Amino acid sequence: MKKVVVIGGGTGNFVVLRGLKQHNLDLSAVVSMADDGGSTGILRDELGVLPPGDVRQCLVALSDSSRLMRSLMNYRFENGGLQGHSFGNLLLSALEKVTGSFEKAVEEAGKILSIKGKVIPVTTHQTRLKMILKSGKVLEGESQVYVSQEIENGYSSIYLEPFAKADAHAIDEIMNADVVILGPGGLYTSLIPNLLVEGIPKALRDTQAKKVFVVNLMNKKGQTTHFKVSDHVKEIQRFIGKDIFDHILVNDGKPNEELLTLYSDEGQLMENDLVSDHRMIVRNLIEEGKAEYADSDVLARHRAFIRHDAHKLAKELMKIVDNI
Amino acid sequence: MKKVVVIGGGTGNFVVLRGLKQHNLDLSAVVSMADDGGSTGILRDELGVLPPGDVRQCLVALSDSSRLMRSLMNYRFENGGLQGHSFGNLLLSALEKVTGSFEKAVEEAGKILSIKGKVIPVTTHQTRLKMILKSGKVLEGESQVYVSQEIENGYSSIYLEPFAKADAHAIDEIMNADVVILGPGGLYTSLIPNLLVEGIPKALRDTQAKKVFVVNLMNKKGQTTHFKVSDHVKEIQRFIGKDIFDHILVNDGKPNEELLTLYSDEGQLMENDLVSDHRMIVRNLIEEGKAEYADSDVLARHRAFIRHDAHKLAKELMKIVDNI
Repeated sequence: MKKVVVIGGGTGNFVVLRGLKQHNLDLSAVVSMADDGGSTGILRDELGVLPPGDVRQCLVALSDSSRLMRSLMNYRFENGGLQGHSFGNLLLSALEKVTGSFEKAVEEAGKILSIKGKVIPVTTHQTRLKMILKSGKVLEGESQVYVSQEIENGYSSIYLEPFAKADAHAIDEIMNADVVILGPGGLYTSLIPNLLVEGIPKALRDTQAKKVFVVNLMNKKGQTTHFKVSDHVKEIQRFIGKDIFDHILVNDGKPNEELLTLYSDEGQLMENDLVSDHRMIVRNLIEEGKAEYADSDVLARHRAFIRHDAHKLAKELMKIVDNI
Repeated sequence: MKKVVVIGGGTGNFVVLRGLKQHNLDLSAVVSMADDGGSTGILRDELGVLPPGDVRQCLVALSDSSRLMRSLMNYRFENGGLQGHSFGNLLLSALEKVTGSFEKAVEEAGKILSIKGKVIPVTTHQTRLKMILKSGKVLEGESQVYVSQEIENGYSSIYLEPFAKADAHAIDEIMNADVVILGPGGLYTSLIPNLLVEGIPKALRDTQAKKVFVVNLMNKKGQTTHFKVSDHVKEIQRFIGKDIFDHILVNDGKPNEELLTLYSDEGQLMENDLVSDHRMIVRNLIEEGKAEYADSDVLARHRAFIRHDAHKLAKELMKIVDNI
């Protein structure tokens, strides 16, 4: 069975995992641990736990349990002191307290949700994302980076504080993989936070796995506003320290105009300026029609009106996997 | 397989269920729905859910899942907006929201916890316990009744508001039982709240089941201060409307002096004035030494320093069951 490792966090990871889960693979998700917004941020601050949000999404994506269980994990309390907390986040935080370990918590939650595959936090250090803009402004935490529209004017540094070392299991997964997939996902909030963890870039450079980069469908306004595909790839490679990708998967489908208008406050369709690169795989990867994962709709609607189609994406990724 | 139904709520129920669970029985717990204190009270007020607390304890008692899962259910968050909530309460409340039904929530939680048997809320009406004292003072809710030390001076009425009808499944369970067990448990907070639900007293009068009353080990100071066993039995029978019990199980063991001193602020050992009643079964039923259910210790320590021994209790109850 081929070993496939997906690196990221958030909705992008969700779609890749949900698609690949249908195939016969040894599947792992290595997940960013920089989230500090919303329910996750409150739990970090009040309980001192590690951030459950992105891990929860990956667990749900890989879950083979009932639709009810998946809905339960994403259920958000609406009133009182619990307001805004998703149940899955509370499960992971309570398990962390009871077991004394976030990794153990993720493992146990995986059992409860009957997941197919593994979910591995990229680090188990308590760490926060920081970004210093050229203007001198400091963005504290992934949640501030996420909403900033000033990043396109340039930044001087982005780092984790305190320093975070990769979890040994995350390194093992990457080193033993047949295929490693990075993206799609927020460049500064889901992808690069993984590459800032000590040990991850080296593992990505050293592994014998085929490396695939799935380019985002859209730019993010104020962050990657004028990025074309080549800028996206270059920015990622700068953090890895080497041009590692064997395949670059890019969309050429057009979302309907209504969605593009709705999305215009958030960003625009990514332009592909790398058509002649032999590593490029260019396909229509856009989800059309109604979303098929009712239990993740709330999440998806908040994060992206236009997103990758899990099946189309998985189909292209499986061609790469089957070719090894 | 003999059908045994245990009626109550709180720690008393926990001990009976935990003991009987070891035996080959068709076991059900019919659970009081009057709790409105602590975590349960906040969830009722803020989310409008039915009270999860007593149900959670019964689910844990009947659970065949790992010790970790049982610890998780009883885990209480210690800080912030979640402070004081037990994880199991949040599970039941989130399931109620996702499924739209408390009964369905209890059923699903039972699956997650691999319970042996069934847990059935005595009613699914949103109702509160009220008690009007002879002094004219009104105790609003089980939580106020629980802490009152004025009940021993007399009360004029105790009732549920609004009026609550029994859940049809609760009636079915009682009608189809071979043995029905009432108690041990707080007289005004765990036992009588079940008997105030329309349909329960009639079912107890009509069922062909053998009826067993397990008398509390201790009086409760300010509530049943001078109660002897006969007073306890009479008070229960007043609410059922008939002398229904076939067996009355009473303790004659003596807890150690140290525990009695520790407990003296809460109550005293119950005196048995019914020795000649042919229905009496008098045994040493006291738990000695260290509690054996680590995962319920927090609960137990708060509720009772002196409690029934699950195995001793189950042994005597099984003699009754096996004699049918």
